[in-house]
Amino acid sequence: MSVTHGFHATMTAQPGKGDELVQLLLDAPSLPNKDCVVFLVGRSAGDADTVFVTEGWTSPEAHSRFFATPEAQELVAKLQPLLAGESQYVDEVPVGGKAAF
Amino acid sequence: MSVTHGFHATMTAQPGKGDELVQLLLDAPSLPNKDCVVFLVGRSAGDADTVFVTEGWTSPEAHSRFFATPEAQELVAKLQPLLAGESQYVDEVPVGGKAAF
Repeated sequence: MSVTHGFHATMTAQPGKGDELVQLLLDAPSLPNKDCVVFLVGRSAGDADTVFVTEGWTSPEAHSRFFATPEAQELVAKLQPLLAGESQYVDEVPVGGKAAF
Repeated sequence: MSVTHGFHATMTAQPGKGDELVQLLLDAPSLPNKDCVVFLVGRSAGDADTVFVTEGWTSPEAHSRFFATPEAQELVAKLQPLLAGESQYVDEVPVGGKAAF
């Protein structure tokens, strides 16, 4: 499936909350969404509270539709208290490759 | 497969060479390597010459072994003339998710 919308987000967890943030992201309702082509969670080897997400969506509209769902809003509500400060976003649209976990 | 080594690289292509750089990366010999669990190519929507690669390997040793192969060195030799300046690397180890291109 082609991806036309995406980003690379860098999140900072509250001290000691990195594991919990990662687990929440790995259970995100984005993953089973067919318009979510890429959802890659990563973390810093050097700092357990620095967490990354790369997302790729079939379209900006598909991402907005998902973001408006109760499931997505529930995720946001759970994420908020685990985060310290603002997440940083980079304009990155995934174009290909693999994630063979 | 578990990933214990990874990074997020930001590359700048020579002006107008973004497409060629992306294609070279999408054909990289890393992709069929079983120790390369994640190889995700992305690009900036706003700047066609900004290209990203997120890699995740089973171990640093597996990555080094691959990097020493003739195929990897051939890729590096092809990449070099397409790049402008130094690539930027961020300590990011992929931990889970999907890439369903």
